[in-house]
Amino acid sequence: MSKKILAINAGSSSLKFKLYNMPEEEVLVSGLVDRIGHQDGVFSYKIAGQPDKHETTQPIEDHTAGVQLVIDALLGSGTIQDKSEIIGVGHRVSHGGRYYTQSVEVDDAVAKKIDELSVLSPLHNPVNLLGIEAFEKLLPEAKDVAVFDTSFHSTMPAKAYTYALPYKFYEEDGIRRYGFHGQSHQYVYGEAKRHLGEKATNKLISCHLGNGASICAVKNGKSVNTSMGFTPLAGLVMGTRSGDIDPEILPFIEEEHNMSPEDVRSMLNHDSGLKGISGVSNDVRDVLEAEKAGNDRAKLAMSIYIHQIQQFIGAYTTDLEGLETLVFTAGVGEHSAPVRSRVCANLGYLGVEIDEDKNLANDFEISTPNSRVKVLVIPTDEELIIARDTLKIVGA
Amino acid sequence: MSKKILAINAGSSSLKFKLYNMPEEEVLVSGLVDRIGHQDGVFSYKIAGQPDKHETTQPIEDHTAGVQLVIDALLGSGTIQDKSEIIGVGHRVSHGGRYYTQSVEVDDAVAKKIDELSVLSPLHNPVNLLGIEAFEKLLPEAKDVAVFDTSFHSTMPAKAYTYALPYKFYEEDGIRRYGFHGQSHQYVYGEAKRHLGEKATNKLISCHLGNGASICAVKNGKSVNTSMGFTPLAGLVMGTRSGDIDPEILPFIEEEHNMSPEDVRSMLNHDSGLKGISGVSNDVRDVLEAEKAGNDRAKLAMSIYIHQIQQFIGAYTTDLEGLETLVFTAGVGEHSAPVRSRVCANLGYLGVEIDEDKNLANDFEISTPNSRVKVLVIPTDEELIIARDTLKIVGA
Repeated sequence: MSKKILAINAGSSSLKFKLYNMPEEEVLVSGLVDRIGHQDGVFSYKIAGQPDKHETTQPIEDHTAGVQLVIDALLGSGTIQDKSEIIGVGHRVSHGGRYYTQSVEVDDAVAKKIDELSVLSPLHNPVNLLGIEAFEKLLPEAKDVAVFDTSFHSTMPAKAYTYALPYKFYEEDGIRRYGFHGQSHQYVYGEAKRHLGEKATNKLISCHLGNGASICAVKNGKSVNTSMGFTPLAGLVMGTRSGDIDPEILPFIEEEHNMSPEDVRSMLNHDSGLKGISGVSNDVRDVLEAEKAGNDRAKLAMSIYIHQIQQFIGAYTTDLEGLETLVFTAGVGEHSAPVRSRVCANLGYLGVEIDEDKNLANDFEISTPNSRVKVLVIPTDEELIIARDTLKIVGA
Repeated sequence: MSKKILAINAGSSSLKFKLYNMPEEEVLVSGLVDRIGHQDGVFSYKIAGQPDKHETTQPIEDHTAGVQLVIDALLGSGTIQDKSEIIGVGHRVSHGGRYYTQSVEVDDAVAKKIDELSVLSPLHNPVNLLGIEAFEKLLPEAKDVAVFDTSFHSTMPAKAYTYALPYKFYEEDGIRRYGFHGQSHQYVYGEAKRHLGEKATNKLISCHLGNGASICAVKNGKSVNTSMGFTPLAGLVMGTRSGDIDPEILPFIEEEHNMSPEDVRSMLNHDSGLKGISGVSNDVRDVLEAEKAGNDRAKLAMSIYIHQIQQFIGAYTTDLEGLETLVFTAGVGEHSAPVRSRVCANLGYLGVEIDEDKNLANDFEISTPNSRVKVLVIPTDEELIIARDTLKIVGA
C-alpha cells in the first residue's frame, strides 16, 4: 500500500518540501516556504497534475508557522484528508559528524546529537533542527527521520579524510574531512548505474555544481573522496566561497587588514569565489555573460572555475585508478553546456569526448559513441533520497 | 677561460656553499657553516679530489663570521690565490614576489625589494639578505646575484595562480600562488630533457619530496602549476607542515582551543604533517620504520603522504593533458624506493609501470620498457642552477 512521506529541506529562512507517494516515488505536491521571519513571507506550492502554481504572501513568524501553512495547503487542496496519512517526514540534516553513517529516526538523543554537532555546522544544523521541531509539534504522529549530507561519505578511507594535523585534533575535536552533498552524489550514482549498469559505473566521478559545489569519487558505489572538507567551504571555488586556499592567507589578511578571524571567515564564505574574482556575480550565468561582453575578470573567474573542476577530476581519477563515468549535476552541471564543454576539453587523455550537439541539448548522455568515458547530465534529486531513506526507516 | 662562482644557500643559522669552475660546472669545494650564532658553531667543507672532509668547531657570531671562515678556507687550502678570483656569488632567495621572473644582480634597489618581500616570506628572505650582505662586505669585488625560488613558476597561467578571493587581495597585497623549489624543478626538468630529449619531456611532473615538498607540472619546459602556494605551507603534507586544509579549521581551532592565530600558524608549520599524524617523526625514514614495527598512526601518516602525492600527480595531468615523464627528486624522492613504488601503484591507468629492481637500486630510469610514462630518479642540484644563472649575469 502506498505511503505518504514528506521530504524537508529547512534553511535559515526557508523550508522546501515535497510530498511523495512511496514506494512509487510519485511527487504529489512540491513547494517552498520562503522569507520565514519576515512580514512579507512567501508560500508557494504546486500540485502534481495541476497547471498552476499557488503563491501567497503573508507574515511567517517562524518555521512552525511555515509548517502550518504547508499542512493547511495539503489538507485544503484535498491532497490529504487527514494529517495522519503522512507516516514519515524526512529531514535533510547538514552534519552527522562521526556518529551517523546512515539516516536515522530522530528521538531525543538524536536531536541532542544534531544540536551538539552544530559546532561543526553552525549555519545549518540549528535550522535543520528547527524544521524537525516544527514537524514534531504539528505532525506528532509522523516519524521524523534525519538524512545527513555527510553520511554517503562515511565510506571514505582514512587517507582521504584525515588532515595532516596533530592527531589530537581528529581524536578530540573530530576535525577531519566529512564532505557534503551526499544525497546528491548518491542519487546521481544510482541513476547512472540504473542506466549504464553496475559494471560501467564502478569508477565514477560526480560533479555537483551549484552555488555550492563539490566533486565526489565513487568507487563500486561508495564515496572514496570528496572535495568539501571539514566544512562546506573547502574544495572547489564556488559562487561566493573560496574553496581551498593556502592556510597562511588567513593570518596574513588578518594582520595586513586588521580583520578579525570572524571577518576573514565571513569574507571567505560570502565575498569570495566567482563573485570575489569577477566582481560581477556569484552566478555562473552572469559571469559567462560578462565574459562574453569582454569583462577580463569574469573571464579569469571562469578559467579558475573550470581549472579547479578539472584538477579534482584528475586527482580523483587516481583514487579510482581510471574513469568510466563522469556525471554533471545541480544547477550549473545540469544546465550549463559551456561549463561542461570546457571542463571536458582537457580530459581527452582520459578518453573523454563529448558530442557538442548533445551537450547543448542537455541530453542525458553527452559523450560520443567513441568516448572511453561516459559523460552524463543527471538532474539531481536530493528529496527523493530523503524520501527513500525515510520510507526504509518508518515504512516497516 | 674558467670563472669561479660561489653558490650560496643561507638559512637562519646555516650557510651552505659550493665553489664552481664555470662554465665547466666543476665543483671545487662544497661545505656548510652550521649553528651560526652559537658558541659551538660547526664549519665543514670538502675539497674536490681530496678524500677527507674538514670540520672545525668554534664560536660563529653571525653570517659575516661564517662567510669569513669560508673565504679563509678557500685561501688557506690554495683553492683560490686571491679573493678577486671569485667573480660572482649567487644567492638562493626565497621570494621574488611578482617582481622577479628571473635571476637578477643585486643592487641597492633589489636588496630593498628583497627586504620588502620579507612580508611574504618572513622566515627566509631576511636571512637570505644576511648572506648577501655578508658577501658584499667580505667579497666586495664579486657581483651578487639573487636566484629566486619563485622565478621558475612565474610562467604559471593566472587560472593556476589566482585564489578565489576578492580580487583586491591579489591587486593590493599580491596574494596569489607563487610556488617554491623553483631551482630544483628547473634542474630536474633540464636533466630529464638532456637524457630523454625534448619531445619526451613536454609533459613532465616533478615531485620534489624532501622535508619540504612540492610537485610541479612542467609543460614544454615551463612551470604551469605547482603545489606550494602563497607560502611554502601549502600543497602536500610535509615533514612538519600540514599542506592544504579546509581554511575553516583555523578559526575553529583558535576558538575551541583558545589559541592565537600565531599559535595556529606555528602549529601548522612545525607540529603538523608526518610528525603530527604519526606522533613519531617528521622524517619519512623513521615513519616507515615505525610502520614496519606495527605503529598504526605511522601507517596512517604514510598512506596520507602517498595519497596526496598521487592526488597532485592526477590533478596536474589535466594541466598537461597527459603525462610523458614523472620525476622523483630531493631526499625522499631520490632515496625512498617504497615511497616511489607506492605512489606509482595507483598510476597504471596513466601508463606508469616501474621495475622494482631498478627502483630499489635508485636507478636513473626506473620505469619498465613497456611503461608509457618514463619514471626517473634525479638527484637535485639547486646550487648548479644558482651557479649557471650567476654566470649568465656576471660572466659577460
